[in-house]
Amino acid sequence: MIVNGPFAIDPWSIREDSVDLDRLEASESVFTLANGHIGLRGNLDEGEPHGLPGTYLNSFCELRPLPYAEGGYGYPESGQAVVNVTNGKLIRLLVDDEPLDVRYGEVRAHERELDFRTGLLTRRLDWVSPAGKSVTLRTERLVSLVQRSVAAINYTVTAGDEPVQLVVQSELFANEELPPTGKDPRIEAALARPLQPEVQTAEASCAALLHSLRGNGLRMAAAMDHDVHGPAGTQTHSDARDNIGRTTVICRLAPRRSLRIVKYLAYGWSSRRSLPALNDQVRAALTAARYQGWDGLCDDQRGYLDAFWQSADVEIDGDAQLQQAVRFGLFHVLQAGARAEGRAIPAKGLTGPGYDGHTFWDTETFVLPMLSHTLPDAAAHALRWRRTTLPLAIERAQTLGLEGAAFPWRTIRGQECSGYWPAGTAALHVNADIADAVLRHVAATGDEEFERTVGIELLAATARLWRSVGHHDSDGGFRIDGVTGPDEYSALADNNVFTNLMAQRNLRGAANACERHPQRAMELDVDSEEIASWRDAAAAMVVPYDAKRGVHKQAENFTDHAMWNFAGTHADEYPLLLHFPYLELYRKQVVKQADLVLAMQLCPEAFTPEEKQRNFAYYEQITVRDSSLSAATQAVLAAETGHLRLAYEYLCETAMLDLHDLAGNTGHGLHIAALAGVWSGVVVGFGGMRHLSAGLAFAPRLPPELSRIAFRLRWRGRRLRVEITPTEARYLLLEGAELTLLHHGDELRLPTSGVVTAEIPPAPPVEPVRQPVGREPLVRRLR
Amino acid sequence: MIVNGPFAIDPWSIREDSVDLDRLEASESVFTLANGHIGLRGNLDEGEPHGLPGTYLNSFCELRPLPYAEGGYGYPESGQAVVNVTNGKLIRLLVDDEPLDVRYGEVRAHERELDFRTGLLTRRLDWVSPAGKSVTLRTERLVSLVQRSVAAINYTVTAGDEPVQLVVQSELFANEELPPTGKDPRIEAALARPLQPEVQTAEASCAALLHSLRGNGLRMAAAMDHDVHGPAGTQTHSDARDNIGRTTVICRLAPRRSLRIVKYLAYGWSSRRSLPALNDQVRAALTAARYQGWDGLCDDQRGYLDAFWQSADVEIDGDAQLQQAVRFGLFHVLQAGARAEGRAIPAKGLTGPGYDGHTFWDTETFVLPMLSHTLPDAAAHALRWRRTTLPLAIERAQTLGLEGAAFPWRTIRGQECSGYWPAGTAALHVNADIADAVLRHVAATGDEEFERTVGIELLAATARLWRSVGHHDSDGGFRIDGVTGPDEYSALADNNVFTNLMAQRNLRGAANACERHPQRAMELDVDSEEIASWRDAAAAMVVPYDAKRGVHKQAENFTDHAMWNFAGTHADEYPLLLHFPYLELYRKQVVKQADLVLAMQLCPEAFTPEEKQRNFAYYEQITVRDSSLSAATQAVLAAETGHLRLAYEYLCETAMLDLHDLAGNTGHGLHIAALAGVWSGVVVGFGGMRHLSAGLAFAPRLPPELSRIAFRLRWRGRRLRVEITPTEARYLLLEGAELTLLHHGDELRLPTSGVVTAEIPPAPPVEPVRQPVGREPLVRRLR
Repeated sequence: MIVNGPFAIDPWSIREDSVDLDRLEASESVFTLANGHIGLRGNLDEGEPHGLPGTYLNSFCELRPLPYAEGGYGYPESGQAVVNVTNGKLIRLLVDDEPLDVRYGEVRAHERELDFRTGLLTRRLDWVSPAGKSVTLRTERLVSLVQRSVAAINYTVTAGDEPVQLVVQSELFANEELPPTGKDPRIEAALARPLQPEVQTAEASCAALLHSLRGNGLRMAAAMDHDVHGPAGTQTHSDARDNIGRTTVICRLAPRRSLRIVKYLAYGWSSRRSLPALNDQVRAALTAARYQGWDGLCDDQRGYLDAFWQSADVEIDGDAQLQQAVRFGLFHVLQAGARAEGRAIPAKGLTGPGYDGHTFWDTETFVLPMLSHTLPDAAAHALRWRRTTLPLAIERAQTLGLEGAAFPWRTIRGQECSGYWPAGTAALHVNADIADAVLRHVAATGDEEFERTVGIELLAATARLWRSVGHHDSDGGFRIDGVTGPDEYSALADNNVFTNLMAQRNLRGAANACERHPQRAMELDVDSEEIASWRDAAAAMVVPYDAKRGVHKQAENFTDHAMWNFAGTHADEYPLLLHFPYLELYRKQVVKQADLVLAMQLCPEAFTPEEKQRNFAYYEQITVRDSSLSAATQAVLAAETGHLRLAYEYLCETAMLDLHDLAGNTGHGLHIAALAGVWSGVVVGFGGMRHLSAGLAFAPRLPPELSRIAFRLRWRGRRLRVEITPTEARYLLLEGAELTLLHHGDELRLPTSGVVTAEIPPAPPVEPVRQPVGREPLVRRLR
Repeated sequence: MIVNGPFAIDPWSIREDSVDLDRLEASESVFTLANGHIGLRGNLDEGEPHGLPGTYLNSFCELRPLPYAEGGYGYPESGQAVVNVTNGKLIRLLVDDEPLDVRYGEVRAHERELDFRTGLLTRRLDWVSPAGKSVTLRTERLVSLVQRSVAAINYTVTAGDEPVQLVVQSELFANEELPPTGKDPRIEAALARPLQPEVQTAEASCAALLHSLRGNGLRMAAAMDHDVHGPAGTQTHSDARDNIGRTTVICRLAPRRSLRIVKYLAYGWSSRRSLPALNDQVRAALTAARYQGWDGLCDDQRGYLDAFWQSADVEIDGDAQLQQAVRFGLFHVLQAGARAEGRAIPAKGLTGPGYDGHTFWDTETFVLPMLSHTLPDAAAHALRWRRTTLPLAIERAQTLGLEGAAFPWRTIRGQECSGYWPAGTAALHVNADIADAVLRHVAATGDEEFERTVGIELLAATARLWRSVGHHDSDGGFRIDGVTGPDEYSALADNNVFTNLMAQRNLRGAANACERHPQRAMELDVDSEEIASWRDAAAAMVVPYDAKRGVHKQAENFTDHAMWNFAGTHADEYPLLLHFPYLELYRKQVVKQADLVLAMQLCPEAFTPEEKQRNFAYYEQITVRDSSLSAATQAVLAAETGHLRLAYEYLCETAMLDLHDLAGNTGHGLHIAALAGVWSGVVVGFGGMRHLSAGLAFAPRLPPELSRIAFRLRWRGRRLRVEITPTEARYLLLEGAELTLLHHGDELRLPTSGVVTAEIPPAPPVEPVRQPVGREPLVRRLR
């Protein structure tokens, strides 16, 4: 990649070697530890300085008003916003009479490292106080992937050459003051100090705080306990008030002696359970954590991660930065989805408050396909969460005058929270995206039980939606008018190809599932006539094609629209939506993010190879990638159409997004879908992995910049390893029954053991493609 | 019409014979007196009971926030709302020790009458106080059409059979408490008690209050003086505090003796003039009013109105209700536009706070054509106001990335105040509507000076807009994509026929004007190349036509959209926008208000007679008339296509709208454009009046329900009278040079004197048309 970033290059970790106060906010996101239930931003142990303090519990959110200058029927009036909950990471340290703070005194060494194999965030700090006392701090932090409610910190202070008195204040701190968001003051007010104190307890080395939310009444509990290993005379006591629980440890250290504290944290929240029940729940979790002990928690974490990497690792030879970035992406997607269990996987995971903590379509479209192939339970849980919100989606469809289910464009708990309907409610493709994730999950796992219970319900409800959204026109064609596709620089278009093809897939998938499970179909009131109507609609689906230009239209009329004036647009006018009105963007040929190109990735059999080449070239010249959801898809189609260097460049762009803070908003949370896109850039892009009607298929091909790629994935109870060199692909079944797959269109039989090697045909010759001026892949521009 | 309404039928007035507290709000709108500068709602003299107190000064408005759940580039953040200013109508009366209030005591007789010839609102009340004292009140109110800043009230109390002591408190009262609006509380707060007291004066029989607005700093002054005619011993004094100025008159009346007070009121406001200058301004106006005296003011008013009726009167034989309603409409349009001079004519005139007091496209499209033919100075003033806002419109176009001028969708003072851009900013046709009003005005008046000064600037700036909004596609066609036409149940469509044809007219009109005034064109930097580009765009304008159905498409793809499920829509689900989301409305074939049909009225030569018939029939079946701006247009096209009874029914619907409060919102102000539509239903509909390229044309035809229509209008310095019977039309030049016009396509020469009679050919046979079930003309349903 050859672009310098803020972090040291290492294949299995991210490390910073100094404190950069200017990019603290972004590094806090990068160093987040999470397990899908609890998220702890990588704030410094002592709390300050900070970019943005953040502790999140998945789906623990407050209501916020959604105001409109001019309202409309069916507009949601109440939104949801993730809440910064009680901060349990805080451990303040007084060295003699001065607080440890890297902004004062002297920092002799500072290092933080996030290790993808241990799952630990480690920090080493050598600090000399303004009065000249030196201490060394070493902390390790984990959020347990095995014990979902538990986090822990191993905190060690060592005296320098002089004796020193230490006061450690380990805290639970609620209603932290946050930097202003610049949002509507009414909304800020609704979210300022959202936690109402309910119960506080403190005794010996432990404390607990229970709070509730003013607006929607949810309750939460945070509790801590400590193992303190100090010299003789070390004293420990705890106290608690409304918004603070504090365990104080005081001791005198002789030179080069240490104080070690293991802090155990437990979190819980509920909309239903009583305060005493919640209190007991977090205390029980604490007890279990202490029983395991720090080393036990670390061993469990390592074991969980070892198993993950066995199914998911991706090796890259030829670009050490990319190697690091790919694993960074895998690790954070794992952290976002691992233990969400019954909750959504938000767009930012639990790494920051961006997008108010909402989940969108990109979880299903970008994140779940990766999880279905690497951590299938997590994908299943995410889809089960969607199923739990089905009643809300059915209600929403009724509000919209539609049948079936209309899942929300953005939400935390299932209610539509979109405040701009042309790019929210109208983006009905989210429903097909959910169905697609179901179909992809069932294909990848072969989990028939999942299909029979969860999958079929989601498929049938969304198929019903499409049947009622679309209609057969006078020529019999099935049209879907006036909806918005993935590209947010167009809206309310007729027959958006992406939407129509995904709806087609949805309708057929639902029909197939219902025919495979007739009993369940009956329970869902799906009869053969309804199934036939789904198949009819799918078969007659309108897919606009511009015969003159030889390309598919993103939507009807699209290719007749005026071209955006790319030559007249300055570099600092991107992203366009901050400098031009929707009126102009929507009317013109300019694409924010892959739309038709994403359709070619997700519905590969709906296009011929030649169409893919022509379409890719056409849309490449008008796609500005003002969204982080685009580069990975462009990488995949660039690879498929033979633009391998371009594919590599797009892959690098996706991979760098958060590590280099390319969008300037990493501080508000990582872009989980883009991180999952790194995986798909490799596996779906260079690996050419597709689910075709003929089965699992690969069409591997390396870009000139890489000498080798290897990846692992799960497929219907198997684990598979694919290794790609410039000339050949090597397939190996690591686990599971033999398998026939496609390699560049040819059947290839994989026995239960032994590598099968297949030649890689040379890439087809291609005409170069071009991007809008100044919107070439970022790595090319930054180099 | 044969539908009973709340008012007595009279050809020249509106009269109520009792106080109906339940419909007080609507009757206050109906009884509004205004002159385009001052508007006094028909509140009772004593202030209470009231529906909605209202006193307005044209364009005196406060800022209000426009909040968004999700903002966007170019969204206006500050709106404007008309303010209820200092109430000068108030005259409270204490009869012995009890306040006159129609809710107490006994109302023996109550009558209010608005006379279209005198311009007076007269009230007669016989009231017995709870203690048994009877008085008779007779008041007359006028808002002077001749002295723009002046209103006056002639107030007479007569004692009954017993002597009585009277205390009269004649007031100026600011910051009246208003009924809650149900709007966003933040917006309510911004508009509550908007007037800040600045200066108060009181002496003898007069008082003045000066206030300013918190938000935008405008200043206003209200002043009053009184002529008091009472028995010996009558005392008068005045006082003033922050928000109240009061002149108190006390006297004892012998039985059947009277106290008469003439109250003179003067109003003024300014964004620039100082408080002393404003104070002097209203005092000078008061002095002029007193100099004229009550009788003088009444004589002037009568004179002004006589002249108006000489140019504008419409006679209807065969339907007394319709006769009344037509004159009611003419009178209120006159009141809205007469003396606006440099200000907008709002959608509600100055009759109520509906639509926040904003002006929209319908002023140009519905109101100005009538004024250009009846009170041309008022139309010219309204267009001059648009020209004063040209710098704002040019700035707005720049914000939108467009050239030329983009006039606001809704505004009071010229700034865009629309908070929902797909039906606001995107409705760019407002610009062509302004250009159309210019062209129509120049055609009707022949006012070359107006064209050379005001007209050409508006035409060129809007032509530039269209040239930059549209583009020539690869076939050379000039497309206008992604804008919204008049029909608010569609949005962001490509090649909306109305918009494209009106833009065509705009481009050609600008080109013609620039060629007629080459010096002015040069001053505006319009060169021959730009003119050629306008003509090219106009010539190549895309006008979508559905060859299969033989009808024009409202916009591209429109006729392929699903039909709205009219059969499944209940009567109480109209207006649809209150019961269905835009998502559904926009995607389907359902029309809120004439759009393609309006294009056929305004661009009559762009369609053949057969196309008009087929288009009318097609759109008739999907038009639900959820807007008050539709029935008049449907009346015109129904008449043209030979559906004369239907045309009559639509005309009646428009005519009844406010008199019968058909939309249930007359209380917030009259629908001025719909009232002007009554005129166009008669003159453009049954009169068949058009401006054709061959000149002024008529194609008169009566519906079976009417036995005779006669109307007067102005045409290029002439006054013309057209009389229509079932078999013949009679044309008479009342004033001005001889004229050749078209009568049903044939040239007809009108000499300077004498009636010219022409036969009316029989109407062509037509297939019946149908409306969506339950959306037949209202009169048909109410009968």
